[in-house]
Amino acid sequence: MVATRRLVIDVLKPYEPPTLAFTQQVAEADSVAGVNATLIELDKKVQNLKLTIEGEAIDYDAVEAIVEDLGGTIHSVDQVACGEYIVEDAPTPQD
Amino acid sequence: MVATRRLVIDVLKPYEPPTLAFTQQVAEADSVAGVNATLIELDKKVQNLKLTIEGEAIDYDAVEAIVEDLGGTIHSVDQVACGEYIVEDAPTPQD
Amino acid sequence: MVATRRLVIDVLKPYEPPTLAFTQQVAEADSVAGVNATLIELDKKVQNLKLTIEGEAIDYDAVEAIVEDLGGTIHSVDQVACGEYIVEDAPTPQD
Amino acid sequence: MVATRRLVIDVLKPYEPPTLAFTQQVAEADSVAGVNATLIELDKKVQNLKLTIEGEAIDYDAVEAIVEDLGGTIHSVDQVACGEYIVEDAPTPQD
Amino acid sequence: MVATRRLVIDVLKPYEPPTLAFTQQVAEADSVAGVNATLIELDKKVQNLKLTIEGEAIDYDAVEAIVEDLGGTIHSVDQVACGEYIVEDAPTPQD
Amino acid sequence: MVATRRLVIDVLKPYEPPTLAFTQQVAEADSVAGVNATLIELDKKVQNLKLTIEGEAIDYDAVEAIVEDLGGTIHSVDQVACGEYIVEDAPTPQD
Amino acid sequence: MVATRRLVIDVLKPYEPPTLAFTQQVAEADSVAGVNATLIELDKKVQNLKLTIEGEAIDYDAVEAIVEDLGGTIHSVDQVACGEYIVEDAPTPQD
Repeated sequence: MVATRRLVIDVLKPYEPPTLAFTQQVAEADSVAGVNATLIELDKKVQNLKLTIEGEAIDYDAVEAIVEDLGGTIHSVDQVACGEYIVEDAPTPQD
Repeated sequence: MVATRRLVIDVLKPYEPPTLAFTQQVAEADSVAGVNATLIELDKKVQNLKLTIEGEAIDYDAVEAIVEDLGGTIHSVDQVACGEYIVEDAPTPQD
Repeated sequence: MVATRRLVIDVLKPYEPPTLAFTQQVAEADSVAGVNATLIELDKKVQNLKLTIEGEAIDYDAVEAIVEDLGGTIHSVDQVACGEYIVEDAPTPQD
Repeated sequence: MVATRRLVIDVLKPYEPPTLAFTQQVAEADSVAGVNATLIELDKKVQNLKLTIEGEAIDYDAVEAIVEDLGGTIHSVDQVACGEYIVEDAPTPQD
Repeated sequence: MVATRRLVIDVLKPYEPPTLAFTQQVAEADSVAGVNATLIELDKKVQNLKLTIEGEAIDYDAVEAIVEDLGGTIHSVDQVACGEYIVEDAPTPQD
Repeated sequence: MVATRRLVIDVLKPYEPPTLAFTQQVAEADSVAGVNATLIELDKKVQNLKLTIEGEAIDYDAVEAIVEDLGGTIHSVDQVACGEYIVEDAPTPQD
Repeated sequence: MVATRRLVIDVLKPYEPPTLAFTQQVAEADSVAGVNATLIELDKKVQNLKLTIEGEAIDYDAVEAIVEDLGGTIHSVDQVACGEYIVEDAPTPQD
């Protein structure tokens, strides 16, 4: 199957574990080279994070399992890049 | 014929298959080197994705067949780059 | 004569042939190295495309003939770069 | 454990020690290669700083201990990058 | 005398000769390496072009003579760069 | 102690000495490699400058002494970068 | 003394000599490597130019003498960069 090289997901998570521990756990998945977790919003009970995940062949199921194992949910998949290299989103007047 | 090197298409798709599986299938076309799928909008029944596709000689019909096979439709072709290399859209005051 | 290295034209075309076939035909002109076609607007009967054309010595008449042959018209020439290399439009406070 | 390579934290601190001494102390943590401290807001009694911290394997607890030792508090963790290299936040229409 | 390496001029011209022929003629001046002509506005009788001209030692009088010979007028000189290399306009809060 | 490599300060100064002489004096501090002084505002009696100072190990006290010696005051320290290299402020949605 | 490597000045000048001749004269100062003159505003009697001047060790007095000799006045010094290299203005939230 074609390799997934970048995955941007919108995640809701409880306050525990905190962002750093949460991100480290996702980054520990075998198929993941690195993770950027950016805080989007703080609610009373949940945090909304945007995760940008890169790897040579990201295993989505493993990522999702870790997120859910830590009490989080993937609210939406906002960007996916698959193939021989990361294709960037080309700007158009429709954006 | 002159090679198509980039194709930006606006796609409507049902929720199944999910974005990642959908994108991987498009990326599996022989003529495609990589695909970036960016989520534009979520509706009750459909998702609106913007696909940026790159390759040495993209076969549009093959891409369209895969999209339709997966229950999606190409709503519009927003950008095409054909030739010896990818020419970028030059900014002008008319933009 | 001095070489034309970039040409940005605003084109109106009928729905047939579609954008990809239209762009490929323009890119097939001998003097053209590559073409970027970006969709600006969709009307009931016509499409408005912005074409950015690059080449070592673009033959405008050949480009125009192909556009008109395909049922399109060049509405305006929005940018031209002529000379030994492509000079970019320098930003000024008058922009 | 996977290395933390960038940490962006929102910090509230008293006027003493001043920003420079405060930043130097954070930068002195063994696991920290460099710190950028940008002033966000000045209040009567506190300063709000945004710290961007980089290192090969940042020790969050050590950073937090230094901040609190100096009378400051980490108000929120705004960005974390973990893994083999720093993954940047990919822009999406949801931003 | 110190060499003029870039010249940005605001030009008004009749519809004939068209932009491409007009630009090529300016680019044919001995002292000019390349010209970018960007359309600013279309009036009933005149076109307003912004010309960005580059060269090792641009001869302004020759450029002006060609513009006027073709029925155009230089409405204003919007940018000039003179010296050993092209100095770019440095952004300041006064912009 | 960890080296301070960049310092951005907001300075109020009288009209004399003028900006250039003022900036040169700050740049003459042993620990300073270069200074950028950008005019922010002109008042009747004072000028407001933003100084961006770079060096391998900037001596803040020496900089402050020079500024005050010339009749100026440091109104606020807006950015500090300390460590092995200059860490840039990472953009976040909180900005 | 520490070298001045960039100078941005706001200049008012009469219509004669025109911008190009004016800029060339400033660029002819021994200490000046290059000048960018950007038109800011046209008044009935004066032109407002922004000059960005670069050199290894710009002699401000020589520049000012040339400007005044040509009937112009330096309205304000908007940016100065002194030292071993050109330090750029670092962006901060206070901008």
